[in-house]
Amino acid sequence: MTDEIVVIEGDGIGREVVPAAVDVLESLDLDFEFVAAEAGDATKAATGEALPAETYERAADADATLFGAAGETAADVILPLREAVDSFVNVRPAKAFPGVDALRPETDVVFLRENTEGVYSGHEDRLSEDLSTLTRVVTSSASRELAEYACDFVEDGRGPAGDPDEGFTIAHKANVMRETDGRFRDEVAAVADERGVDADEELMDAFATKLPLDPGQYGVIVCPNLAGDVLSDLAAGLVGGLGLLPSANVGHDNGLFEPVHGTAPDIAGEGVANPTAAVLSAAMLLEYLGHVEEGQRVRDAVEGVLSDGPRTGDLGGSATTDEVTAAIVDRL
Amino acid sequence: MTDEIVVIEGDGIGREVVPAAVDVLESLDLDFEFVAAEAGDATKAATGEALPAETYERAADADATLFGAAGETAADVILPLREAVDSFVNVRPAKAFPGVDALRPETDVVFLRENTEGVYSGHEDRLSEDLSTLTRVVTSSASRELAEYACDFVEDGRGPAGDPDEGFTIAHKANVMRETDGRFRDEVAAVADERGVDADEELMDAFATKLPLDPGQYGVIVCPNLAGDVLSDLAAGLVGGLGLLPSANVGHDNGLFEPVHGTAPDIAGEGVANPTAAVLSAAMLLEYLGHVEEGQRVRDAVEGVLSDGPRTGDLGGSATTDEVTAAIVDRL
Ligand SMILES: CC(C)[C@H](C(=O)O)[C@@H](O)C(=O)O
Ligand SMILES: CC(C)[C@H](C(=O)O)[C@@H](O)C(=O)O
Repeated sequence: MTDEIVVIEGDGIGREVVPAAVDVLESLDLDFEFVAAEAGDATKAATGEALPAETYERAADADATLFGAAGETAADVILPLREAVDSFVNVRPAKAFPGVDALRPETDVVFLRENTEGVYSGHEDRLSEDLSTLTRVVTSSASRELAEYACDFVEDGRGPAGDPDEGFTIAHKANVMRETDGRFRDEVAAVADERGVDADEELMDAFATKLPLDPGQYGVIVCPNLAGDVLSDLAAGLVGGLGLLPSANVGHDNGLFEPVHGTAPDIAGEGVANPTAAVLSAAMLLEYLGHVEEGQRVRDAVEGVLSDGPRTGDLGGSATTDEVTAAIVDRL
Repeated sequence: MTDEIVVIEGDGIGREVVPAAVDVLESLDLDFEFVAAEAGDATKAATGEALPAETYERAADADATLFGAAGETAADVILPLREAVDSFVNVRPAKAFPGVDALRPETDVVFLRENTEGVYSGHEDRLSEDLSTLTRVVTSSASRELAEYACDFVEDGRGPAGDPDEGFTIAHKANVMRETDGRFRDEVAAVADERGVDADEELMDAFATKLPLDPGQYGVIVCPNLAGDVLSDLAAGLVGGLGLLPSANVGHDNGLFEPVHGTAPDIAGEGVANPTAAVLSAAMLLEYLGHVEEGQRVRDAVEGVLSDGPRTGDLGGSATTDEVTAAIVDRL
């Protein structure tokens, strides 16, 4: 059965790293059909819309979407695309790679970020000349669905320790947001308890102090939407930046896979962008579509190249995107 | 004119470090009257209330309040006390001290955190069995008042660079919270522009990546309430933890001064807690009450003791709280 993969390069280095990731996927000879679609700043300039309805629908109807990056229009592209693929969890691993200068090389964590609500549900009102409000939304159903996913994730040994006993940490701010984050915390903890998965908890501010001090104490972290956004970006800072990190927006029978980095306007167009994050996002796509063995082969090839293959400028080398991609494909 | 200072030790090591800070203040022979008041877990156990009305009113009527720490009841004590002193800004410096093991010793930043609204304004509702909401509040008036304070702060050379030209960075999430954080960002930037103070901006998630990677690029950071909570705690992680950091909740003619650390139940009652954060909070109190020269003397004495005086266990020494306090007083 052919899987339809929508490919949205977007802006800047998205136009270089996404084709690299597609090359890697194509080299595996799986039954994939790639369908190109447009979104981002350039699309907005050309069509008036950052995310044309056609792109939204293609992503909604596909089996998976691979996305690169968008510039100024990032929020207008990414947030609706997450909705198009009906994603309820954003999976964000942050791990230091061999040979990459990292502040905390021992960091090896995976954030499971709630992907539909919190402050992102976006009900804002301008109530007066002086006053605006935002309605933050937390439901038991979304919290429990995330928690079930987290339990599966840990039970399947997909956490950094690979051990079903590792459990997870719930990061929240329920001492202030008692009703909303209280609901989130209580529901996630209840599901973990029902499922026999260990869950401890941490206030998100305390977590932000403790992660840099001792990242080794954490593995899988389950959190509300904005907490996941900020805390996973913090973890990225500890492993050397956003440059190499992939992410998966997982839905029910669809998914959106994207590097965590942006458009890198300083180097865009020169063919020297590092394709690692996009290729690792493709590995997450493979795993999501059930090609677990191929996903692992891609990861191994990427790590091999990071260890002793050609390197792009961000890692102190002088290789091009194409040279690094060819080296990854060679190792598959 | 006598200044009335309410002293709330609270729980745990608050009962050891606050008396140390009072010793330092008393040694300066200023015209202070100290008034003791109770709050925290022990107070709740004894009276049923974590923050008795009498304590709230004493703090509200005083010239300043020095607070230690509270355990489980922290939010029930600190949030109303901030309101009692009518505080609109929480000033949180994070700087690595001599001889303290820090992940990023070059960190030297001051957060100016909005102290009244955002998610802390606390309108939460349980709308159904499944759904809870929180109304996040942002006003132009609070944003502008914070911005005016930030401009004064920078113009008076109180930023880390001590240079009125250093300006400040606005950290926010206006790409998602367009109306509320958009209002915050726009109002703070408008005041900076009117006042001729440089202000750049950063998304709070990007800031969380960049601060660990290169803290030297930041000085004064102005942010909404929860962003300030989390990002200042992150900065604490880069300078070695919460243990040595003071804070000032500044109001119109009142203020609340508190170490950023908690009750440290593991060492409470042994007389070995590090009084540095409480003493530095007292230095912020001195400056707030106009005793700028004395505040600086206290800071210098603390830094001298950290460099080559007796040290408590958290810094690898074996001195008691009293010994460190006596060494600070000796240097004044
Ligand atoms: C672009 C922005 C809307 C987005 C978010 O806040 O989720 C980004 O920061 C991310 O984390 O993917
Ligand atoms: C105890 C808690 C309510 C408080 C806050 O969130 O403001 C604390 O984390 C702080 O930063 O002083």
